[in-house]
Amino acid sequence: MSLLASLVGDRDIEELLSDDAQLKAMLRFETALAGAQAEVGFIPAEAAEAVAAAISLYRPDWDGLAAGIARDGVVVPALVGQIRAGLQPAFREALHKGATSQDVVDTALVLQLAAVLAVLEARLVAVLGRLDAIDRLHGGLSLMAHTRMQQALPFTWHEKLRSWSEPLERHLAALAEVRKSGLVVQLGGPIGDRSSFAGHGDAIARALARRLGLGDAPPWHAARDRIANLGSLMSLVSGSLGKIGADVSLMAQNEIAAVRLTGGGGSSAMAHKSNPVAAEILVTLARYNAGQAGLLHQAMVHENERSGAAWTLEWMTLPAIAIATGASLRLAASLLDQLAIRTESRSGLE
Amino acid sequence: MSLLASLVGDRDIEELLSDDAQLKAMLRFETALAGAQAEVGFIPAEAAEAVAAAISLYRPDWDGLAAGIARDGVVVPALVGQIRAGLQPAFREALHKGATSQDVVDTALVLQLAAVLAVLEARLVAVLGRLDAIDRLHGGLSLMAHTRMQQALPFTWHEKLRSWSEPLERHLAALAEVRKSGLVVQLGGPIGDRSSFAGHGDAIARALARRLGLGDAPPWHAARDRIANLGSLMSLVSGSLGKIGADVSLMAQNEIAAVRLTGGGGSSAMAHKSNPVAAEILVTLARYNAGQAGLLHQAMVHENERSGAAWTLEWMTLPAIAIATGASLRLAASLLDQLAIRTESRSGLE
Amino acid sequence: MSLLASLVGDRDIEELLSDDAQLKAMLRFETALAGAQAEVGFIPAEAAEAVAAAISLYRPDWDGLAAGIARDGVVVPALVGQIRAGLQPAFREALHKGATSQDVVDTALVLQLAAVLAVLEARLVAVLGRLDAIDRLHGGLSLMAHTRMQQALPFTWHEKLRSWSEPLERHLAALAEVRKSGLVVQLGGPIGDRSSFAGHGDAIARALARRLGLGDAPPWHAARDRIANLGSLMSLVSGSLGKIGADVSLMAQNEIAAVRLTGGGGSSAMAHKSNPVAAEILVTLARYNAGQAGLLHQAMVHENERSGAAWTLEWMTLPAIAIATGASLRLAASLLDQLAIRTESRSGLE
Amino acid sequence: MSLLASLVGDRDIEELLSDDAQLKAMLRFETALAGAQAEVGFIPAEAAEAVAAAISLYRPDWDGLAAGIARDGVVVPALVGQIRAGLQPAFREALHKGATSQDVVDTALVLQLAAVLAVLEARLVAVLGRLDAIDRLHGGLSLMAHTRMQQALPFTWHEKLRSWSEPLERHLAALAEVRKSGLVVQLGGPIGDRSSFAGHGDAIARALARRLGLGDAPPWHAARDRIANLGSLMSLVSGSLGKIGADVSLMAQNEIAAVRLTGGGGSSAMAHKSNPVAAEILVTLARYNAGQAGLLHQAMVHENERSGAAWTLEWMTLPAIAIATGASLRLAASLLDQLAIRTESRSGLE
Repeated sequence: MSLLASLVGDRDIEELLSDDAQLKAMLRFETALAGAQAEVGFIPAEAAEAVAAAISLYRPDWDGLAAGIARDGVVVPALVGQIRAGLQPAFREALHKGATSQDVVDTALVLQLAAVLAVLEARLVAVLGRLDAIDRLHGGLSLMAHTRMQQALPFTWHEKLRSWSEPLERHLAALAEVRKSGLVVQLGGPIGDRSSFAGHGDAIARALARRLGLGDAPPWHAARDRIANLGSLMSLVSGSLGKIGADVSLMAQNEIAAVRLTGGGGSSAMAHKSNPVAAEILVTLARYNAGQAGLLHQAMVHENERSGAAWTLEWMTLPAIAIATGASLRLAASLLDQLAIRTESRSGLE
Repeated sequence: MSLLASLVGDRDIEELLSDDAQLKAMLRFETALAGAQAEVGFIPAEAAEAVAAAISLYRPDWDGLAAGIARDGVVVPALVGQIRAGLQPAFREALHKGATSQDVVDTALVLQLAAVLAVLEARLVAVLGRLDAIDRLHGGLSLMAHTRMQQALPFTWHEKLRSWSEPLERHLAALAEVRKSGLVVQLGGPIGDRSSFAGHGDAIARALARRLGLGDAPPWHAARDRIANLGSLMSLVSGSLGKIGADVSLMAQNEIAAVRLTGGGGSSAMAHKSNPVAAEILVTLARYNAGQAGLLHQAMVHENERSGAAWTLEWMTLPAIAIATGASLRLAASLLDQLAIRTESRSGLE
Repeated sequence: MSLLASLVGDRDIEELLSDDAQLKAMLRFETALAGAQAEVGFIPAEAAEAVAAAISLYRPDWDGLAAGIARDGVVVPALVGQIRAGLQPAFREALHKGATSQDVVDTALVLQLAAVLAVLEARLVAVLGRLDAIDRLHGGLSLMAHTRMQQALPFTWHEKLRSWSEPLERHLAALAEVRKSGLVVQLGGPIGDRSSFAGHGDAIARALARRLGLGDAPPWHAARDRIANLGSLMSLVSGSLGKIGADVSLMAQNEIAAVRLTGGGGSSAMAHKSNPVAAEILVTLARYNAGQAGLLHQAMVHENERSGAAWTLEWMTLPAIAIATGASLRLAASLLDQLAIRTESRSGLE
Repeated sequence: MSLLASLVGDRDIEELLSDDAQLKAMLRFETALAGAQAEVGFIPAEAAEAVAAAISLYRPDWDGLAAGIARDGVVVPALVGQIRAGLQPAFREALHKGATSQDVVDTALVLQLAAVLAVLEARLVAVLGRLDAIDRLHGGLSLMAHTRMQQALPFTWHEKLRSWSEPLERHLAALAEVRKSGLVVQLGGPIGDRSSFAGHGDAIARALARRLGLGDAPPWHAARDRIANLGSLMSLVSGSLGKIGADVSLMAQNEIAAVRLTGGGGSSAMAHKSNPVAAEILVTLARYNAGQAGLLHQAMVHENERSGAAWTLEWMTLPAIAIATGASLRLAASLLDQLAIRTESRSGLE
């Protein structure tokens, strides 16, 4: 983990999106695919068993995989080649049969995202819990509201906290909805029409989905709206948290001091300072994700039946969004824990 | 309408988002607000009637409104002033009572968006109808699929059309969902806590929502996720249409000629050309909206109880997204009407 | 001019980029082209005179031009057709001879940009003049510096003003450099190789450049870096002004009150407020331009010898950037005029 | 190096921007600073020697540094603390004397960028060399030009190559200009006014710049235009290369086959395919950098004397741009090496 990642990254999410996790998800896909294909009679049961066994014994040659992705633009040809080398020749074709790189990579991504979204959802619940706790303790305290960067009128912390938590409640519901119906298997074969599965495509997809715990769906190899939508949703989360960060940064100004942060960041030059680091980084991450989400939408212009250009752009942005969102939730929880609210009420306009 | 707007704009959506339409929506808000306030006893019934009468007689001094927005950053103070000038002094305070600029502007926007989304939804249905019609007529025709910009294998137009229509079906469902539950009134008063309505705030909001045909909701003056989400949703629509545009641009290449466009654009220098203008512009609009949607997410960092900086950024991006989405749907329908599919099937790899 | 444009637009720049101004610049191009072609013997002198005469008499049929751009994706075929209708048949071919739409549109854009940049440069000088004047009057006053949203140590207004003016000085130099060497003619003919000028292409381009007061350059029809760079440069200007806006917004907070703004914006609900509208909008415009500049860079992926998709994206973003930059400079000057600096020095940490 | 980095990353640039390289640059800064301060008499010569010795012996406690950046938002307080632990108490204050975190981090970045830009410049020269070689060998070959995705007229490879190389020549000149005058030292002290150097600030900055081989300049802690400009410049490079990638992707279509790529990428499902992977990724990287450059411009809104929010956003985007630019140049060279041009000329319109 790089130094910068210690600040703006997230160990849990990064691990769920690591090469290792991706490889595991791809292996899970290939095992489940062979199982599903045996189930519907597309390959013999013993072939599926051989595939499962080979995969359980498979140890990646990472350098070979790296060379593969650099050459082919996708790691799957190299990966399938490496696994096949551990299979008896008679069963080699049973591995990845009728499938294409995109089936593996996209479905593996969905598996990884399922885990990522579970973490994000749990953290969102935790942040909401903290907001609720603060409201119970301090909701009645008075606070000066500010509009257009000027003092407006006093209101209560309850109102402030509500403006923070209500959008998060909506995001929580949207995340739950995505987890319920948006995490679907991708299975299309070379050109997305399932013709390579000789009439068994839909049945294989159903069985595959069931085995992987994902939803069933028609192939979506070239329809990237679910991916773009997920990026937007995560950007909404970090955006709502960025608003909290901006508010806290402003309220923690020495001249306002509506809140104080315990354990703020230190300075190399000014010992008296206590910097609202987590609050600032919430703003950074909101802006970062807004930019990446816009870029991810560029990848919807996915030409033909597979666009190497657009697909790779997803790989460069969606995981980055997920990590920033994870970091944002982590920092929001930590910021709320640091938050000391001034308890004496303050009189009207100063 | 500017020359460029003839190409990338949309007369209907521009009209729904014009100054005139906004003013009408703001007047509708003020009338409904007074009515709602009379209903719950916050102002006398005769005051509400006077307000309604004054509004029905009101003729905007546009120069005064322009000067107002330039000075105040929002048009409402000038607008309220102009309307009040037409009210008997005794009823002046009944206009806009307890409300703030944001209540007017945000609710007016939602009213305008309701009309915009109805148009977008109808157009989406029309585009889907065309795709369905093409599928019935030509779904069985063969077509070479391309992956990573190379010939892959032949499939049928049915598969191609499905990859175009399925995301649009999802967008249609999402639009319907937003229209059903996402179009809510904003009423918060100066700092969003409804305290200016002396305990009547929630009742007024309910009555106001009912009178305007909108949903009821707590104040969302500083929680801009619904706005950002709507921008993302529209960008998904134009993104999915941009994919169609990219596909058609590629298929209409002379060397591929899987489709021909009747009535393509002419060239000032090369009489033989028939340019896929609508297809290209679909790509342009998808990219444009992706950028604006990203920018709109930046506006989620909405500091304090009202951010002039972030709010104004919404005004510069959301209407632009709506217009581009309207144009995108208009052009998609027109492109599909122009689409002549090559009927002889083509053999394998060339 | 729309209401919103009264706030975030700029009448001067909008006029320089209007349809009317574009048409005038395109007509200037066609006249100068015919003149240059006569000069090098590519068309007869009397043909050039006939072209010049027809252009001077030409009155646009705007509806026809609008229909033309909607059909052809570019206004030039319709425009050339309209002008030719006013020419004797014998001279019709002399108009626009060997040229393509892009030659007209791109060179006209450069002519318009020359005027735009002159305005921006003059305004930049004016803003720098104001900063210098403030420095002379108040540079010695003490001011609390803030780092990471916390009080740091006191310094002087001179330092603050230097941090504002130094980047603007760099932008001024960069603008001057662009005006000196970056404003070049585009002349390439249908595919950008000048072959349509029968060996006279380079000579015509030189003469054309001289007649239009632009620099000479090889065709750049598909190399859009100068356009993208200009967008970035303007975004740097609005970005540096956005920093001023952010600083003033913060310093004008009631609790800090390092500055006061005379004539701040009013509120419809809170009479006591004086909102830092211009400062906020500087932030808005900086963020807006950052987004548009990123989008304009997307248009560098300009496929083949002319991309309708990428070119149109430039049209949607570059003028918007120029207008926002103009507005930003206008508002910065006005903000600095409003700026009342607290004259009593303030002691150390509060 | 992750799998994805094997495709879209760049080992050389990543190394130059690694934690290790950053640390080395920061240590170089601290050593040079002490040396410069001794030179002008701000600290004793023996203190500078002690600092240099301690730094040469310093071995980073990476976990401590990671904890430091997570806490303080910047690694410098932890780093200075670790180095000071190896210094005799009497000399501890001589390390980092009068400096602030931003002086170290920004100047270290400039040192790293100096190395990065040297690599980029060398690669740009190499790409230009390849383009020139292709022109010499094949410039006279005929090629069908395409405008708006349609066949236009034939021209020569010389013209095509010129449209690729000319913008790169401009970028090369701009890079050289930045290397010559844009790589400047940052030295400002806590609030950027050099007051912490007791009147020696300018002299220390000059000596520091000389020792580090950088240019001298006033403090630019809050004026981030040079950083934003550098990001834009790199995005121009990848944008111009993205245009080459788009062109090659289109020319390598089987149906056009104006070029063939030796050693194209393989498919896991279709053995006959040879995918233009490098060409596609050039498009990806151009779009990626366009997005990041836009985001980097957002960081120009750098409030007050140091913005943790904006500064950190730079850290998340500028290195990413540099790596993508490096990858883009690497892939462009490799793509040009793969490029086999069809030598038989093709007749007019097909």
